[in-house]
Amino acid sequence: MIPSPYLLYLGNSTEPLSVKTSRGVAAWRPELCVGEYRGEACTLTVGLDHYSFEEAVKNGAKTLIIGVANAGGVLGPQAVIDVVAALKAGLNVASGLHERLSSHEEIRKAAAETGRQLFDVREPPAKLPIGNGRTRAGRRLLTVGTDCSVGKMYTTLALEKELQARGVNANFRATGQTGIFIAQSGVPIDAVIADFISGAAEWISPAREDGGWDLIEGQGSLFHPSFAGVSMGLLHGSQPDALVLCHEVGRAHMRGIPGRELPQLKDCLETNLKAARLTNPNVKAVGVALNTSNVDGDEAQRVCSEIEAELGLPCQDPVAMGVNKITDRLLECFESYELA
Amino acid sequence: MIPSPYLLYLGNSTEPLSVKTSRGVAAWRPELCVGEYRGEACTLTVGLDHYSFEEAVKNGAKTLIIGVANAGGVLGPQAVIDVVAALKAGLNVASGLHERLSSHEEIRKAAAETGRQLFDVREPPAKLPIGNGRTRAGRRLLTVGTDCSVGKMYTTLALEKELQARGVNANFRATGQTGIFIAQSGVPIDAVIADFISGAAEWISPAREDGGWDLIEGQGSLFHPSFAGVSMGLLHGSQPDALVLCHEVGRAHMRGIPGRELPQLKDCLETNLKAARLTNPNVKAVGVALNTSNVDGDEAQRVCSEIEAELGLPCQDPVAMGVNKITDRLLECFESYELA
Repeated sequence: MIPSPYLLYLGNSTEPLSVKTSRGVAAWRPELCVGEYRGEACTLTVGLDHYSFEEAVKNGAKTLIIGVANAGGVLGPQAVIDVVAALKAGLNVASGLHERLSSHEEIRKAAAETGRQLFDVREPPAKLPIGNGRTRAGRRLLTVGTDCSVGKMYTTLALEKELQARGVNANFRATGQTGIFIAQSGVPIDAVIADFISGAAEWISPAREDGGWDLIEGQGSLFHPSFAGVSMGLLHGSQPDALVLCHEVGRAHMRGIPGRELPQLKDCLETNLKAARLTNPNVKAVGVALNTSNVDGDEAQRVCSEIEAELGLPCQDPVAMGVNKITDRLLECFESYELA
Repeated sequence: MIPSPYLLYLGNSTEPLSVKTSRGVAAWRPELCVGEYRGEACTLTVGLDHYSFEEAVKNGAKTLIIGVANAGGVLGPQAVIDVVAALKAGLNVASGLHERLSSHEEIRKAAAETGRQLFDVREPPAKLPIGNGRTRAGRRLLTVGTDCSVGKMYTTLALEKELQARGVNANFRATGQTGIFIAQSGVPIDAVIADFISGAAEWISPAREDGGWDLIEGQGSLFHPSFAGVSMGLLHGSQPDALVLCHEVGRAHMRGIPGRELPQLKDCLETNLKAARLTNPNVKAVGVALNTSNVDGDEAQRVCSEIEAELGLPCQDPVAMGVNKITDRLLECFESYELA
């Protein structure tokens, strides 16, 4: 567990996309966030109070979250200086960058001297099991997608919020860096050794006896030629009872591959269901989460209705419309299970 | 490239399975092997001349192959002593064990002093690309399976031999440790970071302009809940024109998972073809390679005929019957391509 509350590090970022992770944490877990730290050249905010490291500690912060991204995923020289200063001020430090905090001698030394912890969330746990595909207790939902970056994390978190608001025990299980900061735990599934993908998914959603749901953040797509192996292992290891298909309206091509068309929703859903049956023969699709940010509201409603008619599933944009209909369907589908 | 010829290290092995890798190299690449090195307690042989490290060097050996396996995949203390002695005698050393040669200070030191190379073949190359799924020149065949360890490497090597005997330019591309010693290069596909599985497959069979075939060693199974992610990424990255399905007659359950049934051949083949179409819409199945070692010859022939009738594909046991019919079908299917 990454200790909270957090101070979110924005560094000297000037490009909104580069603070996407900090923004996600601030949006989904405001209760975990004390404030934000901005360098002198920073032109951005995620809407929290600005603190120095010392002020943040006085206000209860336990961990500095390096929630910035840049080309190459490296810690710049200023960030290294800042991390050392944060450790000396009494903060733990967690980073989602590819370059590990612990690869810097001065950071390791400062952590040892201050007794603070370093969390490199792109580093998978050392002793993951090999997946075994055996049925385990509990109920699981996995978000799957036509492509990468179509809103799987957002959808999963929206479902957690809606289910909790209805009094259903449900927990987000993270598989990517932003998700891990939000959940305070998880596995960066794309960074594990290939043999352990499904084992990692089994590890983040172990047998659960309280009748509640594990809501597992999906990654990639079975139809993305770069990453389908990750998506397949995650699907098998998650052993989902329920799938929600995520898609973005109007996306021109598969992410990163100009010219490659997205799959048809129906084919994509059926392919996911068939693969999922290997570890859960009773898997059901319960909805489609549609990112409609590229079209106006009328068109969004029209597309949702069209997909509902085609697939026989509720279809909503979690941002614009919420996930109440998908949640209704989920609970309807598993009511009998609940009583059983 | 791992320099050849090889001296095969059997250590003090007494258990035939533990020298499976050395046996595979000796069987498939006798021309690469100068001899074998046996410790005092060794009760096994792979049928080569016994040499000390010094004698092997005199006979031209360039690399000692640590082709032994044990629980945990570690180098024992005697093996470390032997590796250092081999380096000092003038040999490079290549190992397929999980524990890296380079993790031992005394081995690193001896390699540095003698200027010899260390090859840890379970260590993937440092700079693998992310797969892109784009069509590349050349023709590729991939072996796929109903399960792990059903004869995919053997089948791929048998096809290489048969094609070469017919004058067709064809090369085995290795994805596992034994295969890598045989090919003198390759990528241990199950050891790469999940995000790079398909990229690794693209990397081992790059664009090929000479009209020849890359014959890619398959791994795992789309129906194995522990490893399907690896198989999926390998399938997409290989971009196969041709698939050969491998299966073992009479296997009771999926490897390592008692109680889990094997898939039906037809379903397994169709699922592989559908997934393969993502990166090669023209993929064709050209045969079934059946390991019939569990049944007698009459029964083997009967099962092959049954599968041929069901799937409309030639079916042979590569060990007992060769792969001539599968090779005929492969060349028939791609004749027009060849002329194109």
